[in-house]
Amino acid sequence: MYSKLKDTVCKANIELHALGLAPFTWGNVSQVDRDKGVFAIKPSGVPYSDLTPEKIVVVSLNDGSVVDGDYNPSSDTPTHYILYKAFENLNAVVHTHSVNASAFAQAGRSVPAYGTTHADFSYTAVPCTRALTQNEVDSEYELNTGKVIVDHFVSNNLDIESTPAVLVRSHAPFTFGKNASDAVHNAAVLEIVAEMALKTEIIGKDVPEIDKYLSDKHYFRKHGKDAYYGQK
Amino acid sequence: MYSKLKDTVCKANIELHALGLAPFTWGNVSQVDRDKGVFAIKPSGVPYSDLTPEKIVVVSLNDGSVVDGDYNPSSDTPTHYILYKAFENLNAVVHTHSVNASAFAQAGRSVPAYGTTHADFSYTAVPCTRALTQNEVDSEYELNTGKVIVDHFVSNNLDIESTPAVLVRSHAPFTFGKNASDAVHNAAVLEIVAEMALKTEIIGKDVPEIDKYLSDKHYFRKHGKDAYYGQK
Amino acid sequence: MYSKLKDTVCKANIELHALGLAPFTWGNVSQVDRDKGVFAIKPSGVPYSDLTPEKIVVVSLNDGSVVDGDYNPSSDTPTHYILYKAFENLNAVVHTHSVNASAFAQAGRSVPAYGTTHADFSYTAVPCTRALTQNEVDSEYELNTGKVIVDHFVSNNLDIESTPAVLVRSHAPFTFGKNASDAVHNAAVLEIVAEMALKTEIIGKDVPEIDKYLSDKHYFRKHGKDAYYGQK
Amino acid sequence: MYSKLKDTVCKANIELHALGLAPFTWGNVSQVDRDKGVFAIKPSGVPYSDLTPEKIVVVSLNDGSVVDGDYNPSSDTPTHYILYKAFENLNAVVHTHSVNASAFAQAGRSVPAYGTTHADFSYTAVPCTRALTQNEVDSEYELNTGKVIVDHFVSNNLDIESTPAVLVRSHAPFTFGKNASDAVHNAAVLEIVAEMALKTEIIGKDVPEIDKYLSDKHYFRKHGKDAYYGQK
Repeated sequence: MYSKLKDTVCKANIELHALGLAPFTWGNVSQVDRDKGVFAIKPSGVPYSDLTPEKIVVVSLNDGSVVDGDYNPSSDTPTHYILYKAFENLNAVVHTHSVNASAFAQAGRSVPAYGTTHADFSYTAVPCTRALTQNEVDSEYELNTGKVIVDHFVSNNLDIESTPAVLVRSHAPFTFGKNASDAVHNAAVLEIVAEMALKTEIIGKDVPEIDKYLSDKHYFRKHGKDAYYGQK
Repeated sequence: MYSKLKDTVCKANIELHALGLAPFTWGNVSQVDRDKGVFAIKPSGVPYSDLTPEKIVVVSLNDGSVVDGDYNPSSDTPTHYILYKAFENLNAVVHTHSVNASAFAQAGRSVPAYGTTHADFSYTAVPCTRALTQNEVDSEYELNTGKVIVDHFVSNNLDIESTPAVLVRSHAPFTFGKNASDAVHNAAVLEIVAEMALKTEIIGKDVPEIDKYLSDKHYFRKHGKDAYYGQK
Repeated sequence: MYSKLKDTVCKANIELHALGLAPFTWGNVSQVDRDKGVFAIKPSGVPYSDLTPEKIVVVSLNDGSVVDGDYNPSSDTPTHYILYKAFENLNAVVHTHSVNASAFAQAGRSVPAYGTTHADFSYTAVPCTRALTQNEVDSEYELNTGKVIVDHFVSNNLDIESTPAVLVRSHAPFTFGKNASDAVHNAAVLEIVAEMALKTEIIGKDVPEIDKYLSDKHYFRKHGKDAYYGQK
Repeated sequence: MYSKLKDTVCKANIELHALGLAPFTWGNVSQVDRDKGVFAIKPSGVPYSDLTPEKIVVVSLNDGSVVDGDYNPSSDTPTHYILYKAFENLNAVVHTHSVNASAFAQAGRSVPAYGTTHADFSYTAVPCTRALTQNEVDSEYELNTGKVIVDHFVSNNLDIESTPAVLVRSHAPFTFGKNASDAVHNAAVLEIVAEMALKTEIIGKDVPEIDKYLSDKHYFRKHGKDAYYGQK
């Protein structure tokens, strides 16, 4: 019943590891099927080399319970769950601890949009959330991680399509996508963009962010109805 | 009619990706055939793993229109076009978003010539252009990117043979070459030289550029009529 | 008699090299068998590509003498020996000169716990010991290296389970584990966490360490009786 | 007549490239045979993938002329020549433009000995020479490069055995060895040690060099008559 979704999610998780973005068992990819009211996600702590579609876990969008699969889902499942509930246009989520993006999260800073490489991928800086409170951590931590992301997007009028990545403070990035593969791609681009931003700040002092008109040009060259990058 | 040129350009694009300089679909290589009045370039947004000579697009030097090929050419085609028009001694162009060179472009700085590795490759610092104006971005952006490069070379009395690379501010590098493979080589060398310059500035404060006489020695050891590096 | 232990230790040493943590002959892995009163360790200076289980050396926990094997044990054997003697809950030890962790050791600094990647692995900062005195270096250097580590853990009330890594000042890291493979894993995680900490300090000024309640959450999510990460 | 020497030198050049220390045609390895009064060296500008023992060039120690081989020797041959003439205990030389070591050379700084990884390899800091004068560059540049290295070692009472590497200011490193393979090993270790030193200076301010007694311990653990590292 969920075999195509599980195949897709298994493949994207393996791709995430192959790209070097998730060493050991770090990181997870999920994708939603809103018609069936479920999302599929990596099992917790299973090495990528042992991953098969059969081990992918299917979770209900109603209540976050497992509806298919013999394994425990990723411990970050409640974060994915709350994101899918809050953002109706969200199709896939990736979580990694990639080094450069996590370093920005640890420093409590957004990744500034310094150039066109960033603008090709995100319409805004990659935001960094506030820290979770002790209460939010002590009870339903993973659910509250999702809520803090949602709050940040709502308060700042951000959209997961034009801002396809976020840093959770003191923690690490989550990225979004049209599908699992696209969210993995965004995780890879974020890591490159973060490394480039870090090096930009070593090379220059008080570097300004990219001009809005240039950022718009690059973003809309690749995204939206007037995009002209790529093939029809 | 263009099969040899398309083979050459296809191979160089694949080499650019294999060297790690163009992840995903980022980056493009073109080469001109002035006798036939055309240049060949990568199709837009096509993954390097899917690239074949048949997919390479051939563009007229007269007006920049496609004269051969079923795909859309790279969105950066007008930049290549204007460069070939302006520089009669230009045979090949490469565009990448390689991390260290792009970080200098984002910081709005030239890559200083700190040592012989740089001098072996370029006679000058690798210049960084001015920013494009909003008008230049809003209309004919890619063409104007080329014009800003040309203006920079003309105003600063630079030549694409002795300065085979340039950074477009807030954007990324373009490199030049005797042929597509040579331009790819220059893109790879630029990335190494940029990393070395960044690290030189971490290690030392106010490091002077290389002595002119040492730079001349290294540059002319490898380039021009008195070169004695390599085999005859 | 020791063939299973030697197989395990051989495999873990080869894994350490394959992970890029021990180029050339740098680094060594040991694992103890307390029932048999021995530990097995890499032979000194043997390239990883030549390593076979037969070349692994078995050392007595009584007096540190070789009880099995034709090769000289790692020159760092007395360090491993003193660690196994002092810490009854210690099962495996890894020594590397991995770049980022060694850079912290050379700077004489602990690796601060800046985020959840660190907290998933260690309950505390990764401590850096004091320097050895000239007397400690001139006589029984490797034994004294172990003693300085033990002193640091005892004086600071640290435990090798919750603090599975340490930096010896001006030298390099040692990591601990439930078994040889786990200690190798900790060596790999330490190197990532050290790189992330270094970059965090480039990105931010005076970055605070992770909140204790968040650190606790992550550490105990993966470790101890209430852990819920992974499969049962 | 020189086939064994040419085999050895060919293999070491290929190893240098495989270790990532010499991209493209950058870098060269030579080894001397003092009984035969010659040294063998890489041909100039030949890609490592095309290198065969037949292409290795044999050069006379009498006058630096080619005595065997159909190719031009490396353009750096006169540097190797002068080093072999000046240092009777020198058996092999490697030249690279490896990034971290070259960055120290460009900053005009020695690589400080910050820890045991350095002390295992070199008894001293890796020195950086003075700049060559315009006269020294304009005439017999490569020969004068060797002379400046020799002068630095003589004036500072350094020995190529205990200081197996040197940086030529604004240029790049040369390393020395007991044989070609050992000199390649030293080039690889230098690059790691330089990266570690650069990172040590990012992590700490005014980090002191390693204590002399610890440096001595590590150096003599691996080198000289009382060495006890490795197998007999």
